[in-house]
Amino acid sequence: MKKAVIVLSGGLDSTTCMGIAAEQGYALYPLTFHYGQKHNREVEQAKKVAAHYQVSEHRIVDIAFLNQIGGSALTDSSIAVPSEQDDKEEIPATYVPARNMIFLSLASAYAEVIGAQAVFIGVSAVDYSGYPDCRPEFIQSMDETINLATKAGTTGERISIVAPLMHLTKKETIEEGLALGVPYELTTSCYNGEEEACGTCDSCLLRLKGFEEAGGRDPIAYASR
Amino acid sequence: MKKAVIVLSGGLDSTTCMGIAAEQGYALYPLTFHYGQKHNREVEQAKKVAAHYQVSEHRIVDIAFLNQIGGSALTDSSIAVPSEQDDKEEIPATYVPARNMIFLSLASAYAEVIGAQAVFIGVSAVDYSGYPDCRPEFIQSMDETINLATKAGTTGERISIVAPLMHLTKKETIEEGLALGVPYELTTSCYNGEEEACGTCDSCLLRLKGFEEAGGRDPIAYASR
Repeated sequence: MKKAVIVLSGGLDSTTCMGIAAEQGYALYPLTFHYGQKHNREVEQAKKVAAHYQVSEHRIVDIAFLNQIGGSALTDSSIAVPSEQDDKEEIPATYVPARNMIFLSLASAYAEVIGAQAVFIGVSAVDYSGYPDCRPEFIQSMDETINLATKAGTTGERISIVAPLMHLTKKETIEEGLALGVPYELTTSCYNGEEEACGTCDSCLLRLKGFEEAGGRDPIAYASR
Repeated sequence: MKKAVIVLSGGLDSTTCMGIAAEQGYALYPLTFHYGQKHNREVEQAKKVAAHYQVSEHRIVDIAFLNQIGGSALTDSSIAVPSEQDDKEEIPATYVPARNMIFLSLASAYAEVIGAQAVFIGVSAVDYSGYPDCRPEFIQSMDETINLATKAGTTGERISIVAPLMHLTKKETIEEGLALGVPYELTTSCYNGEEEACGTCDSCLLRLKGFEEAGGRDPIAYASR
């Protein structure tokens, strides 16, 4: 059976990737990163999602270093999470330096060790977050680099970076996930990581808008609604 | 003052990079990775090297995950470190999956946060180790990917990956280092990580040959000599 490593945050997008990879016949190897993010609740959600899909192995990787160096509203307690992005041209304060590159590097090492053919990541260039490491040109470049860095690249057995949501709107992602029975009730998207999602941060707003447009109801509870 | 992050293992090559970057006028920000390597003694040596260069900050990054997933003679206790590479065509058992990609990803995040212009890494394609992630095509691709993944890439302020030893033989590296007063007495290269270097692993043999050809004397002690 072919194997896929899934970068699983416990959010809506990465959980949708679990559903898509399962549908494509992959054995799922979710990998969740703990990096001192304020929305650390995600890690608990990721465990529930992994259990839902009955995976044989769910690795949680500690990258405390990202928290130690700071530089992001998501990891640095001295930087506030903005309630809404003021200037859409700027990279948001919630950008975590080189995060997806770090995640994909570690995921590729894992893929190589377990003999996986693919690494799934739930980034999207539509409803653009403003994060440089969500762009297709980054994913493409990373895919090439990974195959130069690993054994796979020298033996011809490629590890492919798969970003199935890259060209989907949030609405389309949710439609796809609902059709695949993705357990959105187990996910969280809020940057603030309180018991209930805030409903006001950028990430909550984007999620709520997506459900509204998809004509579905977001199954999770919000503090502000 | 311009800043450089130096991937510092405490070995001969990365310590030479410290000397080269210092000579080029960079403020040095060494970054040392602890990943359950058998030659963990390196980390202690790296601290001594950092102290020698009187750096203001020396970060030690724990990547226990690399040890947890195994797959290398350097991190997996069930795989022996070979005394000599039998088949030079094969990737050696000491290859650690995607190691340099992981190191450079984390180093780039750090570079972005502290505003460094360069990340130095002591890889070489001469006296080729057989590691895919020591090849110039990997470094080139990684450099491009990093600049797509980070803020630097969108603002035009590049972070450059600098591999000053890429085209040097071990002899030439040592000659360069000796001319720059690099403290080789503080370094270790042995894969086995005992009190004294073994003098028989691939890494020790390459180092000893380098000193011999450079006409210098290796200042460290060897168990087998």
